[in-house]
Amino acid sequence: MTVNQRKAQTRIERAAPIVADGPGEVLSRLSDMCELRGLDGLSADLLVLRDLAGPDLERLVAELETLEVTERLAQRAAGALLSNGGKRLRPLCVALAARVGTGFDDVALQLAVAVELVHNATLLHDDVIDLAPTRRGAPAARAEFGNAASIFAGDWLLIEALRRVRRAGVPGLLDELLETIAEMIRGESLQLENRGRLALDRQLYFEIAESKSATLFRWALRAGARAGGLGTAECRALGDYGTQLGVAFQIIDDLLDLTGERQATGKELFADLREGKLTLPLILALERQPDLRPALEEIASSAEAADVGSGVRRRIAEALVRTGAVRESRELAGYRIAAALECLEGLPAGDATAALALVARSTLMREG
Amino acid sequence: MTVNQRKAQTRIERAAPIVADGPGEVLSRLSDMCELRGLDGLSADLLVLRDLAGPDLERLVAELETLEVTERLAQRAAGALLSNGGKRLRPLCVALAARVGTGFDDVALQLAVAVELVHNATLLHDDVIDLAPTRRGAPAARAEFGNAASIFAGDWLLIEALRRVRRAGVPGLLDELLETIAEMIRGESLQLENRGRLALDRQLYFEIAESKSATLFRWALRAGARAGGLGTAECRALGDYGTQLGVAFQIIDDLLDLTGERQATGKELFADLREGKLTLPLILALERQPDLRPALEEIASSAEAADVGSGVRRRIAEALVRTGAVRESRELAGYRIAAALECLEGLPAGDATAALALVARSTLMREG
Repeated sequence: MTVNQRKAQTRIERAAPIVADGPGEVLSRLSDMCELRGLDGLSADLLVLRDLAGPDLERLVAELETLEVTERLAQRAAGALLSNGGKRLRPLCVALAARVGTGFDDVALQLAVAVELVHNATLLHDDVIDLAPTRRGAPAARAEFGNAASIFAGDWLLIEALRRVRRAGVPGLLDELLETIAEMIRGESLQLENRGRLALDRQLYFEIAESKSATLFRWALRAGARAGGLGTAECRALGDYGTQLGVAFQIIDDLLDLTGERQATGKELFADLREGKLTLPLILALERQPDLRPALEEIASSAEAADVGSGVRRRIAEALVRTGAVRESRELAGYRIAAALECLEGLPAGDATAALALVARSTLMREG
Repeated sequence: MTVNQRKAQTRIERAAPIVADGPGEVLSRLSDMCELRGLDGLSADLLVLRDLAGPDLERLVAELETLEVTERLAQRAAGALLSNGGKRLRPLCVALAARVGTGFDDVALQLAVAVELVHNATLLHDDVIDLAPTRRGAPAARAEFGNAASIFAGDWLLIEALRRVRRAGVPGLLDELLETIAEMIRGESLQLENRGRLALDRQLYFEIAESKSATLFRWALRAGARAGGLGTAECRALGDYGTQLGVAFQIIDDLLDLTGERQATGKELFADLREGKLTLPLILALERQPDLRPALEEIASSAEAADVGSGVRRRIAEALVRTGAVRESRELAGYRIAAALECLEGLPAGDATAALALVARSTLMREG
């Protein structure tokens, strides 16, 4: 271990849980992680990214704090979630896309706030649906304020997001956001219909991932590009980058559900499966080893994580490795990242475009 | 009983439950009810209203059927609720306000659809929050399709409504609808905070009723007025009419919860109280007879309607009459209706304005 790697290791070990991080800190943490894995170039680049986009994210957080979140129960529930950190990856995408153009101005800031609000709105409704006890390592809004407050809080954030996009006044963006949200609901609904059946195949998986997860990334990139005054071709390229990044992000999310650390994700392992959702690595493992189904069903039907014997867990974990499901999932995410990087090729070279490339590459590294 | 009253009585008794009615039928039913109560003038006027606005409501229902409600679970859940009738009172308000101006054209139709979608979105979310088993006399969407589908269905209807208002392209109306929905959420949240505490007073009651119920009526009237090309003063007058009508409507809703017939409302008696919501008649009764509180608490804390003894129900029913709470509630609704009628005074005289007056007066008559 080099001196820098030891320092990075120490910083990682001593750091507070990721949920308490400021917006720039997420990037520092990711940089340390790359350092530790010997990815010195990526590590240094991430610190450059932090210096470039850190102030943008600080403005975002300051703006989020201006929401009147202290008044009513629904607003307090929304505020509790918003102030609890998160990676702020979607607003980061808005900021960087805007910086590919003329820069991160007040209009871009409002669009960055809007995308974060829509994302948090979906989390508030998802947590009610999944009866989730925690989110980002803290009690979920529904656990602290109740399901009703969490539902209204989601409704409110959605409306607040739309009001901000409306006020931003960029032609077409509000329509695109309305279509994006409708598409997200379609994806959520498709997932819901397949929930608990453990019958999802690859094709349906990607259809859900594109609708549910990738469309909002796509909008974030297009919104930033429009705010930055970029032309049609560049907006399309950045939007496509967003789609690819979003799908890769979802695949890595799936991998973290099976292999991530509780502290890093704020979630317990196999949480998706226990909610009846089949993730990509499990779909691939089932393709190759169909007799794994009873073990998966045992976890999917368990009321409590503790009800599942360690033997069952170990068997699935082994199968994920032995069948190559984990490796192939990571590869599939890698292809998406490669496709995302290709989308950037026609864009003006510069710090922001380089930063977007970095965001894509580091998505494969993330641990939370 | 006159011959016409006997005929009206027969029609009422033989009619199918209100949920299966076509849009014009609600008005025929109301007309029969007025006939039966000796309100012959009102009864005849309602048939005129049916002839005036019936075709508008037919167009509304045809347009609602064009929503792609067969595809996904969330859409099917939304479709099941939308096709289950309801009074269509908010779209009726849009249609009549438009007819005060230049008429009910395609733009007004889209706005009428939008207001009905927003209303149904709130019902879908409310039913999840209240764990309601039924809605409009049929199984609630959440009971048939699940809570998750019902939440997504509400989200989808909200977005679909906003898309239609956006496409209608009347300047300012989308902003007003976003503000209206935000205000509705504020009212819902205020109600939520006071739920189960049985500590609501008149002032808070009216604040909730104005936010939660009346703002959407206000928007419906303003939207119709704008689509009909009316000027600022007329839009304001119609909006104010909507606010007053909406509050009156909520008070009558409260009375029906205590005195209505299950068949007419599709709800069980004391349903609001069992959900921890204090209605206006109960607030007034408590003001005058504070020792009623334990009986109310018994109902509010009962898990099943059948758990409440008939003695407790009878005691509350008697107190509502003896304290004059029912009478005063009806009077307070009457004042609101009088105020609504006053708002109409400056408007162009004609069938549509007369019809709006009729809608206001018949609100006091409704039994479902």
